[in-house]
Amino acid sequence: MELEFLGTGAGSPAKTRNVTGIALKLLEEINEVWLFDVGEGTQHQILRTTIRPRKISRIFITHLHGDHIFGLPGFLSSRSFQGAQKSEPLTIYGPKGIQDFVLTSLRVSQTKLSYKINFVVLDEEKTIFENERFLVVAKHLDHRIECFGFRIEEKDYPGELLVDRLRAAHVPSGPLYGQLKAGKTVKLQDGRVIKGQDYLGTPKKGRTVTILGDTRQTANIALLAQNADVLVHESTFARNEDQLAYNYYHSTCIQAARVAKHANVKKLILTHISARYVGQKANLLEKDARKIFKNTKLANDFDVFKVPFSKE
Amino acid sequence: MELEFLGTGAGSPAKTRNVTGIALKLLEEINEVWLFDVGEGTQHQILRTTIRPRKISRIFITHLHGDHIFGLPGFLSSRSFQGAQKSEPLTIYGPKGIQDFVLTSLRVSQTKLSYKINFVVLDEEKTIFENERFLVVAKHLDHRIECFGFRIEEKDYPGELLVDRLRAAHVPSGPLYGQLKAGKTVKLQDGRVIKGQDYLGTPKKGRTVTILGDTRQTANIALLAQNADVLVHESTFARNEDQLAYNYYHSTCIQAARVAKHANVKKLILTHISARYVGQKANLLEKDARKIFKNTKLANDFDVFKVPFSKE
Ligand SMILES: [Zn+2]
Ligand SMILES: [Zn+2]
Repeated sequence: MELEFLGTGAGSPAKTRNVTGIALKLLEEINEVWLFDVGEGTQHQILRTTIRPRKISRIFITHLHGDHIFGLPGFLSSRSFQGAQKSEPLTIYGPKGIQDFVLTSLRVSQTKLSYKINFVVLDEEKTIFENERFLVVAKHLDHRIECFGFRIEEKDYPGELLVDRLRAAHVPSGPLYGQLKAGKTVKLQDGRVIKGQDYLGTPKKGRTVTILGDTRQTANIALLAQNADVLVHESTFARNEDQLAYNYYHSTCIQAARVAKHANVKKLILTHISARYVGQKANLLEKDARKIFKNTKLANDFDVFKVPFSKE
Repeated sequence: MELEFLGTGAGSPAKTRNVTGIALKLLEEINEVWLFDVGEGTQHQILRTTIRPRKISRIFITHLHGDHIFGLPGFLSSRSFQGAQKSEPLTIYGPKGIQDFVLTSLRVSQTKLSYKINFVVLDEEKTIFENERFLVVAKHLDHRIECFGFRIEEKDYPGELLVDRLRAAHVPSGPLYGQLKAGKTVKLQDGRVIKGQDYLGTPKKGRTVTILGDTRQTANIALLAQNADVLVHESTFARNEDQLAYNYYHSTCIQAARVAKHANVKKLILTHISARYVGQKANLLEKDARKIFKNTKLANDFDVFKVPFSKE
């Protein structure tokens, strides 16, 4: 599980920061990549990474501002052009209007995709995706336009089957081991009753990543971020700019650090950096945040962050 | 008058060629820049040039394929974001559907521009723009989707007023000189009749640039290109690929060279280069075309070509 930042800028593309695009790489886990927001030029950024567009199976759109969606039609077209198969559909989760934008773009340009797009319109706070391995919850944030944050939870890994211990207890190997591994209780031919739970190692806790769209400070941020391994939070403004941040429906680096601490996350990544902050000024956003929450990183384009399992 | 190529690729962005975008810089002439097609990432390319978005006053769209228009919403937003004034409107010329695409993009993203956009829907072959200095004619091409080529004609510069000769003839200076400069006939107080035409130098011929969208070979190409100083012609395919070019509604480098010769243009610029042709293979497109039309150049991203006055 890795986060790769394709665009860490705000509003308009700048020379060193493209507009928003974040890839959550779940290649080892489920051989998929998920995208969060697709600003213009996201497909150009992907060209410079090892990410293969056909591996991108789900796209989550936080909100419909242009710097978060204008790269979507081009990405979808190129994914088709570059050989995505009919068997590689794509699901887009986003606020009402995303379907209108995508379908109008494809219709006007007479683009016929080689694969199917499923749209999931976000309109309430709920679990928007769940399979055996992952679960995604969406909650409203507080931006000038309807905006969501996402909490991506990896489910816990069941403990390993302690085969050595089973052998020591003379439990004969066979299909029965599968049932024990699933935690079930089985009866042996010799009459003994064996509980799977007694032969399983400690379950490994799954990881949680929280990715927010643009937002003012609001109670849902902590709910989405609670105990997360990584929180990706916007930092459009610097310390002492609370009023500006509030007026423009954004946050400061200090506000991001405070909620990271309050929600007990393990790592905070700042993104959505305004072109007003370059070089030392950008570093200062990180430095100021660290005074409140030590494990803070300011993201730059093409930064990759591994999401490690927590050691408890 | 200069042509600056912002994107010279075909279909999808590649590492060294962005999708289509061409700037016709008329800064010395009318202090404006005109854009021809706006593929995704055109605004990113502009960032790396000296072109100021607010100077871009007219955008001509050849056709609605994604690689020619998906950069439009982002460009329009950033032009506003970067301070274009209400007094700096923009006119977009393009096939039916362009307005739907732009307005849907702006509406869904809740983008409010600081300036007004005028849309001119191209539906027939005619002069689509004319002022005192320039004239633009659009004609249909032959592509999979409705597609236009543009002939941009600079009007002839009137000859200079030969002031020395007027003085030698003892014509008194004054507002009268203005009328003579405009070619009018005036009567002096001493009764003499002076014809402006007799006191004007040779008029200087205006320049003509022809910019085509994607196209198969069709009679309108020569009509648009006749005697042009520069013809910008697509070259999606290589020599001996006439059949492929025909099937995909495109042209080969050889076809472009033939029509350049036939239409008596002064310079041919090849663009819309497929990602199949890189390095030597791309050079070969130029080399092969030169065997038929010597003054051929293959465009690369960020190439700038001056359009000189012809010496007759
Ligand atoms: Zn926003
Ligand atoms: Zn085309």
